[in-house]
Amino acid sequence: MRIARFSRGDAVSFGVIDGDPAQPDSLSVTAIAGHPFAPFQLAGEPTHLSEVRLLAPVLPSKVVGVGKNYAEHAREMGGEAPPVPPIFLKPSTSVIGPQESISLPHGHGEVHHEAELAIVIGRLCRDVPVARAHEVILGFTCGNDVTDRDLQKSDGQWARAKGADTYCPLGPWIDTTVDPADLRISATVNGEVRQDGTTADLLTGVSELVALVSAAFTLLPGDVILTGTPAGVGRIDEGDEVAVSIEGIGTLSNRVVARA
Amino acid sequence: MRIARFSRGDAVSFGVIDGDPAQPDSLSVTAIAGHPFAPFQLAGEPTHLSEVRLLAPVLPSKVVGVGKNYAEHAREMGGEAPPVPPIFLKPSTSVIGPQESISLPHGHGEVHHEAELAIVIGRLCRDVPVARAHEVILGFTCGNDVTDRDLQKSDGQWARAKGADTYCPLGPWIDTTVDPADLRISATVNGEVRQDGTTADLLTGVSELVALVSAAFTLLPGDVILTGTPAGVGRIDEGDEVAVSIEGIGTLSNRVVARA
Repeated sequence: MRIARFSRGDAVSFGVIDGDPAQPDSLSVTAIAGHPFAPFQLAGEPTHLSEVRLLAPVLPSKVVGVGKNYAEHAREMGGEAPPVPPIFLKPSTSVIGPQESISLPHGHGEVHHEAELAIVIGRLCRDVPVARAHEVILGFTCGNDVTDRDLQKSDGQWARAKGADTYCPLGPWIDTTVDPADLRISATVNGEVRQDGTTADLLTGVSELVALVSAAFTLLPGDVILTGTPAGVGRIDEGDEVAVSIEGIGTLSNRVVARA
Repeated sequence: MRIARFSRGDAVSFGVIDGDPAQPDSLSVTAIAGHPFAPFQLAGEPTHLSEVRLLAPVLPSKVVGVGKNYAEHAREMGGEAPPVPPIFLKPSTSVIGPQESISLPHGHGEVHHEAELAIVIGRLCRDVPVARAHEVILGFTCGNDVTDRDLQKSDGQWARAKGADTYCPLGPWIDTTVDPADLRISATVNGEVRQDGTTADLLTGVSELVALVSAAFTLLPGDVILTGTPAGVGRIDEGDEVAVSIEGIGTLSNRVVARA
């Protein structure tokens, strides 16, 4: 099942996507009553996807990021991956949805895309054992852990470099059935492939990350864990279109603009 | 004016505190209709403070911390204060109120108290100029930036060390009129003074911090900026009672327990 959040006129709803993403004309969304973190019922008729605006598929209370979780990316950043990946937080104010703009603030440094598999938490949880991680995962979506590389280096702490408004695109929807073990993950900028990896290369896997992160913080329904990025990160500039695609999930596209 | 959040039976409200904190028997709270981030009216009769339970005075979407913002504390941590203080995030799940317990998780390291003046943001804002910072501040409360010093060193990123559940006590209430320029700030553990400083020694002052942090992230009503801690941080252990006092605001007390 694919779960989206969307607006139509003034109304914002969660909804279920039907159709084949390979044929965009076939896609529709049907609103659900309430939220997807408990058993729900459909509430309405299907609407063609072109008649709604997709939003970030969740409003996380927090986004937990992990660094250096692909060996080749750790090397391109000039080091080896540590045994426990560094954990950082991106605030809710950094989250945007598909087709929203990544807005570069005044005085920004070199800003990079980082294509990432995003885990969406479905239940309040803490200290989740690896073997039970699947019970607390609602599904998976695409994430872009946008990072100001200059600020990351000069600050030491990554909150500003990774936490700016619009620096956490998520979407286009949550896939609740995909197996995250070996999914091709890529990023393109203006159609040119920059990152092309597989989640099979995650050093700390999805279940282990849920265990690690839920041992550090209580997780709430809708919270997101970004699982780290494969090699090939690179610069994005005003006017660029950056797209993160994950096999079996979909494509998250965002244009880069300068903050007005 | 002093604004608190409290529960009485099943009801949770914001409220206005009356009376003299030096004479606890004189203190009462009167509920307000709605929230304190817009003009509000009182909604009820005063209740003696002993008949309610004070909660964290706000539910922040994020708590923004700053490091090394007192020269003497920077030195006790083994360095000099940098020109821009490091900025980090504590998640909403770390927040507790007065008298709630700081809960040390299994396998924790050496955990320290850090008494801090906490700024409570009153309005949605971004890129606030220093001269207008007062317009977006609702008031001030006491904060304790509880930190696992071992995890802070080994992780590099401070999210886990400072972001664990219960590691952000706030309270007892928000004082909306106190001038933060030169307030005595102290921490005691089991009644023994450990930290004793003044906010006059903040390297980056309150207005400058609001400007710095609001340039990094959009701030929402209720968001909190912790302004850094004076010298004298030290270990807290199971059974300890740690109290942060700020002149003109009040005292925030929390007992330390081991997580069940």
